[in-house]
Amino acid sequence: MTGPKHSCGVVGISADHDIVAVLQKALMIIQHRGQESAGISVFDGMTIHTVKDAGLVQTALSRSRIEGLHGNMGIGHVRYATTGGKGVRNAQPLTMTTAFGVVAIGHNGDITNYGNLRKEYLANGAVFQTDSDTELIINIMSKYLGQNSNPILAIRATMSEIDGAYALVLIINDRLFAVRDPHGIRPLILGKIKGGYVAVSESAAIDALGGQIVRDVVPGEIVEIFKDSFKSNMPKFTCPYAHCMFEWVYFARPDSVIDGQEVYDVRRRIGVVLARESPAKVDLVMPIPDSGRAHAIGFSNESGIPYEEGFMKNRFAERTFIMPDQHERELAVSTKMNPIKSTVAGKKVLIVDDSIVRGTTLKQLVLMLRKAGAKEVHVRIGSPPITAPCYYGVDMKTRDQFIANGHSVDEICKIIGADSLGYISISGLVEAIGIPAEKLCLACLNGQYPTRIEGERERFQSTLGDSSFQS
Amino acid sequence: MTGPKHSCGVVGISADHDIVAVLQKALMIIQHRGQESAGISVFDGMTIHTVKDAGLVQTALSRSRIEGLHGNMGIGHVRYATTGGKGVRNAQPLTMTTAFGVVAIGHNGDITNYGNLRKEYLANGAVFQTDSDTELIINIMSKYLGQNSNPILAIRATMSEIDGAYALVLIINDRLFAVRDPHGIRPLILGKIKGGYVAVSESAAIDALGGQIVRDVVPGEIVEIFKDSFKSNMPKFTCPYAHCMFEWVYFARPDSVIDGQEVYDVRRRIGVVLARESPAKVDLVMPIPDSGRAHAIGFSNESGIPYEEGFMKNRFAERTFIMPDQHERELAVSTKMNPIKSTVAGKKVLIVDDSIVRGTTLKQLVLMLRKAGAKEVHVRIGSPPITAPCYYGVDMKTRDQFIANGHSVDEICKIIGADSLGYISISGLVEAIGIPAEKLCLACLNGQYPTRIEGERERFQSTLGDSSFQS
Amino acid sequence: MTGPKHSCGVVGISADHDIVAVLQKALMIIQHRGQESAGISVFDGMTIHTVKDAGLVQTALSRSRIEGLHGNMGIGHVRYATTGGKGVRNAQPLTMTTAFGVVAIGHNGDITNYGNLRKEYLANGAVFQTDSDTELIINIMSKYLGQNSNPILAIRATMSEIDGAYALVLIINDRLFAVRDPHGIRPLILGKIKGGYVAVSESAAIDALGGQIVRDVVPGEIVEIFKDSFKSNMPKFTCPYAHCMFEWVYFARPDSVIDGQEVYDVRRRIGVVLARESPAKVDLVMPIPDSGRAHAIGFSNESGIPYEEGFMKNRFAERTFIMPDQHERELAVSTKMNPIKSTVAGKKVLIVDDSIVRGTTLKQLVLMLRKAGAKEVHVRIGSPPITAPCYYGVDMKTRDQFIANGHSVDEICKIIGADSLGYISISGLVEAIGIPAEKLCLACLNGQYPTRIEGERERFQSTLGDSSFQS
Amino acid sequence: MTGPKHSCGVVGISADHDIVAVLQKALMIIQHRGQESAGISVFDGMTIHTVKDAGLVQTALSRSRIEGLHGNMGIGHVRYATTGGKGVRNAQPLTMTTAFGVVAIGHNGDITNYGNLRKEYLANGAVFQTDSDTELIINIMSKYLGQNSNPILAIRATMSEIDGAYALVLIINDRLFAVRDPHGIRPLILGKIKGGYVAVSESAAIDALGGQIVRDVVPGEIVEIFKDSFKSNMPKFTCPYAHCMFEWVYFARPDSVIDGQEVYDVRRRIGVVLARESPAKVDLVMPIPDSGRAHAIGFSNESGIPYEEGFMKNRFAERTFIMPDQHERELAVSTKMNPIKSTVAGKKVLIVDDSIVRGTTLKQLVLMLRKAGAKEVHVRIGSPPITAPCYYGVDMKTRDQFIANGHSVDEICKIIGADSLGYISISGLVEAIGIPAEKLCLACLNGQYPTRIEGERERFQSTLGDSSFQS
Repeated sequence: MTGPKHSCGVVGISADHDIVAVLQKALMIIQHRGQESAGISVFDGMTIHTVKDAGLVQTALSRSRIEGLHGNMGIGHVRYATTGGKGVRNAQPLTMTTAFGVVAIGHNGDITNYGNLRKEYLANGAVFQTDSDTELIINIMSKYLGQNSNPILAIRATMSEIDGAYALVLIINDRLFAVRDPHGIRPLILGKIKGGYVAVSESAAIDALGGQIVRDVVPGEIVEIFKDSFKSNMPKFTCPYAHCMFEWVYFARPDSVIDGQEVYDVRRRIGVVLARESPAKVDLVMPIPDSGRAHAIGFSNESGIPYEEGFMKNRFAERTFIMPDQHERELAVSTKMNPIKSTVAGKKVLIVDDSIVRGTTLKQLVLMLRKAGAKEVHVRIGSPPITAPCYYGVDMKTRDQFIANGHSVDEICKIIGADSLGYISISGLVEAIGIPAEKLCLACLNGQYPTRIEGERERFQSTLGDSSFQS
Repeated sequence: MTGPKHSCGVVGISADHDIVAVLQKALMIIQHRGQESAGISVFDGMTIHTVKDAGLVQTALSRSRIEGLHGNMGIGHVRYATTGGKGVRNAQPLTMTTAFGVVAIGHNGDITNYGNLRKEYLANGAVFQTDSDTELIINIMSKYLGQNSNPILAIRATMSEIDGAYALVLIINDRLFAVRDPHGIRPLILGKIKGGYVAVSESAAIDALGGQIVRDVVPGEIVEIFKDSFKSNMPKFTCPYAHCMFEWVYFARPDSVIDGQEVYDVRRRIGVVLARESPAKVDLVMPIPDSGRAHAIGFSNESGIPYEEGFMKNRFAERTFIMPDQHERELAVSTKMNPIKSTVAGKKVLIVDDSIVRGTTLKQLVLMLRKAGAKEVHVRIGSPPITAPCYYGVDMKTRDQFIANGHSVDEICKIIGADSLGYISISGLVEAIGIPAEKLCLACLNGQYPTRIEGERERFQSTLGDSSFQS
Repeated sequence: MTGPKHSCGVVGISADHDIVAVLQKALMIIQHRGQESAGISVFDGMTIHTVKDAGLVQTALSRSRIEGLHGNMGIGHVRYATTGGKGVRNAQPLTMTTAFGVVAIGHNGDITNYGNLRKEYLANGAVFQTDSDTELIINIMSKYLGQNSNPILAIRATMSEIDGAYALVLIINDRLFAVRDPHGIRPLILGKIKGGYVAVSESAAIDALGGQIVRDVVPGEIVEIFKDSFKSNMPKFTCPYAHCMFEWVYFARPDSVIDGQEVYDVRRRIGVVLARESPAKVDLVMPIPDSGRAHAIGFSNESGIPYEEGFMKNRFAERTFIMPDQHERELAVSTKMNPIKSTVAGKKVLIVDDSIVRGTTLKQLVLMLRKAGAKEVHVRIGSPPITAPCYYGVDMKTRDQFIANGHSVDEICKIIGADSLGYISISGLVEAIGIPAEKLCLACLNGQYPTRIEGERERFQSTLGDSSFQS
Repeated sequence: MTGPKHSCGVVGISADHDIVAVLQKALMIIQHRGQESAGISVFDGMTIHTVKDAGLVQTALSRSRIEGLHGNMGIGHVRYATTGGKGVRNAQPLTMTTAFGVVAIGHNGDITNYGNLRKEYLANGAVFQTDSDTELIINIMSKYLGQNSNPILAIRATMSEIDGAYALVLIINDRLFAVRDPHGIRPLILGKIKGGYVAVSESAAIDALGGQIVRDVVPGEIVEIFKDSFKSNMPKFTCPYAHCMFEWVYFARPDSVIDGQEVYDVRRRIGVVLARESPAKVDLVMPIPDSGRAHAIGFSNESGIPYEEGFMKNRFAERTFIMPDQHERELAVSTKMNPIKSTVAGKKVLIVDDSIVRGTTLKQLVLMLRKAGAKEVHVRIGSPPITAPCYYGVDMKTRDQFIANGHSVDEICKIIGADSLGYISISGLVEAIGIPAEKLCLACLNGQYPTRIEGERERFQSTLGDSSFQS
């Protein structure tokens, strides 16, 4: 609820039958990763056709828009704009003609050396129609495709130029590839479906397609996907992994499995750790729906304090509406969330959410509970304080938006008006995720970035002869 | 999830300030009662303006569509079509010019003697542009307004002609009325908001507007609503009340209070009763989200069996999509609901939902859980078996759709593939609701109808041997 | 160009084959009579289906909207709103259920005693959803259908109540009727097409359908149309005819024949009469396109002065656009019309148009010609000065809009900046039309109205002691 | 009517005030040059904003779409697709970021060596998102801008690489340029408007903006346009001019002046020449509206045969509609054009049109006239027989579509069913245009192309024996 927003989701499928409707369905399953535009590119045996538009999958890729489209191989993309506008202009897949043929690409992530690379390519005569790093990736790839017609070599050469987070799906002429950045920041997983293979941002899509998980794409791996198999091209050098911890905490669906860890289980364990680290004497535990639900169940199960659903979330109030005066504006949050009075009145209440960015919504929810008669309101948060920007595809790019930047936990507790506030510790979070800290990206928590970012501290540079980089 | 669909929601507001945005917000809060069309009629001091269209509030009443609209008094409506088409043609409010002036009406419910009344009015020269019972109500009201310019007498006379369920909001020239049928089948509640008064289908809207509940509209009552007060006109004869039990079980928001009973609490108590009536030795209790959540929490709290969220519901999969072959069609439910494997694998699982109509979806969900590795799957249902049609505004009008019609509980258990199946008993449900059975409509459970329905048994005729309460 | 706007067009077809596309085509041919909404009602053998919307035929009745519609009998309507709003709410055909069955109606004209009749019917309990006189007509018809199930008697009785101009197409259950008001103010003509019969506002539609004109519907006649014949019901009493002279002067297509007179020929003869009545020593004659073209050709042929096209009309500039300041606003007319400099520079020019209402556009056109270098600009107008309102379906309902009301011809000449101005005389116009004055409606020219209009002079009232007006 | 379709129109404006609405208006005036998409790019002092979409100016650049756009310098484009799809993807202006800054371009014409150049640039690493030659032009320009930051040198270098027809408007960062190809195939003219200067495809736009023609852009010239002046960069070598004769015959508005010749006057002179070259003993001369009108007036004036408008053109029948069977399909032309029977019945009729491509429509029109009673139907055509494809922006790219390819005039006369058929001679056409043949492009008439086209004969190679004018 109060967490950050995420960038995108991708899918690529090769099968022995028409996969247009399959792509459409897969994108619906990962729609939560991007709701601003949706698109698919399909190879029909001769050429690549693309349909994309602003809006949700059900409108951008509605039945009437895709009914003429057919093909056994294709890629799809849903987009949340972390940079650039929201219109159809920036919708993906992006399709381009190069010397080697046609390339269609879908990209989840952010290229961190985009600015310098773009200048370099401009100086060499490249032209750009958008501000997106995806267009840059195609330009780089085009250069290498022109030099060497082997697409795997071209992708590998492109990866040697770009830094940052990326999970890519690519059609190059009649071949389909899935690519994950060497740090494995964004998720990408392989699955077997009836009559074909799929690579997709989240495993829940493989379930929904009736398929089975094969394995995660390895960081730095290039996978070529065929209808009846896939073929791996592994990186020569292994980077330290840096899986984004926020995928488990908030972004991914609870029914997905990311890099071996079930998201729902991680969230439950976060609740368990929270209950141990920050216990509270309260009458009931309740989530901020829908984001804090699994965390709250874990807290309840560990503490033995009853679990209740004390907030009603209105699923029709996604978008803003007319608020002519201050009175109305204050009522805005109340359209999305309403406390259930009989549940909270006269009670000591503990609410659990996944994270705090600005804290403004949380402050209003605490106030709502008090107005509804709660005797005490305690807050527990399933991630440590966020204090540093993310450059890897999450919509929090500046420090001044973080309430935890410059405020102690006690100060934040007062600002949001809670009786107590407990964040999970970094070590507690790492324990709950079940992956060693050195294989996670915790940059937004500790300011140590897995790749070189101008003006930021690079995790492994400063500690290269030294593995004590952990706090 | 697997329950029936409901008809409509209404709201009427009078205040000392412009209430267009307030109406819009209130309709968003009761949007779950009808998602096919939305509309408002506003009295601007001179005349009544109406904006309505097919679609959700956010599109049918978008900012650009209502920005020119102003007024201190108005009504609103959201519609789920139980009869007739879905288009703008049937959107409400319906506005008509009569001899007495302009009438705008919003209607939640179904008029059961519609067919006969329509024939009668046609024979007397009336013409109808739609098949809706709302148009009939205006025609009847027009007759009485023509005979007697007192709108309250006209409404009362209209109520003497029509049978069935209705919660009405009405503007007659410059006066605003809220009306509830003599049995109180559909809910309608009065609230005080800043600078005004409101009547609305559900109390959650009063919360969201920052107001306070005043009281439910009494069955048979006509309430005139002013900006600074309201005035009641009570029925001369009191009918037996017949509040629809399904409002608490499924239709209403959990944060609403209907006829004095908090919906969330009723659902929790249903879970408690279910746990007593149909206990089970299982490892965990989980809801069918979102409909079974409060029932499951009650079951968990009473039984001491841990509560888990074992299904992920995809909120973007509301609408259907292309399903070119049988293989795809089977995958349709899986787009909406996916089990969380790590939670259910190897476990004895008990799932709770509000009701069963056809049982087809439930069957697929049970199968999904087994495929996900559940050792046992037990099902508990928060309402007794549905065996009789509803004629009062719920979309279940024929007997042959009910799985419980002609099948025993054991047979149903086998059909849906569960290890055990338990419905709450009628007496258990009544206990959980907290209102005596004789004040509830249980017609879909026991076939006893509170009003005369051709071909059906009337509750009080058969039980009282006395029809003198009528007219 | 500078003339008034007109109300509507209607068509009704019965055939031995599906006529949906035929209706659509016929409406395209009479699209000039109404561009605000379009609709069709089709009887499919069982019931009547209606498709209608705001916009031109090509959008309101686009292929996708009508592809599911089938039937061998139907009516259609295109609308220019002389009263009420422009939205889909007022689109026709209007369909209503009455005691006798379903009635669909399309109406071209205005009912002049609408106000009194509406009050009367309201008092008797009727309700109205719109302000249109068409809804009133159905209410009246419904009353008589209820009294007597013979639709022809009901139509005849309805005609005895309503005054004014009307050309109606009607489906009553499974029967199709075409009706023309007793004065024959608006046109309506019968045609034979392949496999069927048609009644339509203008004969050009019969041509476009590959059919042959049968004859005009007689004023006061009710025609029932079958697939293989038609059957006439003639009025008992013959009113004096009053065909609207503006149909020939401006409204109708030049390729239509109305009440026996070819429209193009009438316009040419108007030019001939103008050349005789108001000759001029000029170098060339040119029309205001497209409205004055035939008149100008007649003037040129009669006078021997060369005909030129000196204005270019931009067919893409139908609608207004952003005009941020006065400078831009002055340029507005110039987007629609541009003089061809080489044609007019240094020349004495005579321009011909059909009529003058306000004179504002004409003034700008004269100025344009002078700026383009014309030495002299003379103006000739194909209708006499308009000084009285029209109550019969033309969008000129008040006196103060007419430049000829209160200004002499000399004064108007000065206002528009012309070197000379000549209107055709009333007698000249009558001669050109070829129908005796007593069979024409000239009310907007001489203030004598063929029907009783409150506050206006009735033509035949003044001559009541004299029945010799009939030919 | 029966002529070919044309490619595009462009405009560029620099002024001391906001020119967004001015661009919009100018595009409306040249809308006839392209009706598939419209767009504008405006420099607001900081950067370039682009609004473009499929559709007419009034929808693609509607008030709501451009109301936030402001700037004193901008370019605009209307498009008819001669290659590629019709969607927004191919709408112009095209905007790209290059090493030198941002470039926006609008292009009217076709680059004839596009295929080879594209291959060359692809091989050098360029990528293309569309199939349009406009994207290629920007890539070439980008290369030269990267080499040399002087935009005029970059444009000149670009012109040395591309062959074909092009009239370009360009914004390069904060500078506005207008460019015409060295042969001057497509028109481009400079004008002075209030507070600024304009370059536009047709002079009629300068009139509509209240401005004055300055002069045509010289073939091969680059003009930089400022708000208070313009600056010319002339080509070092002058190519033989090759103005497209079809601009005067059909494409341009009659009120435009192209390369010094008034379009209406040229058309009238064509009619005069036709009357001399191919006289006929007929009763009346009539145009195919709207394309043949000026030609017919010229014929009438020269021959003394009366001019009449014998066809009614339906301006609402632009688009196709449902035609379920052959019977309906035959009626299609009749929706667009209807003869006026009283004018043609019993008469010897001569019709004049601008050109014949396939002849199919003309055949139907002749038949219509005969059915309407014409005694004889004679046809005169304002251009010589078209026998060779156009590679310069006109939608006639293959030989097999031309009826004159393989048929003599007598044969064509029989095919279209006329009593006589006369084309104007090439020399007659040249005389009417008033420009020497060696300065016109007559390639579609004589197969001699002004630029090198693979498989076609180049005009000056064969005639001059000297290719030194190139490069």
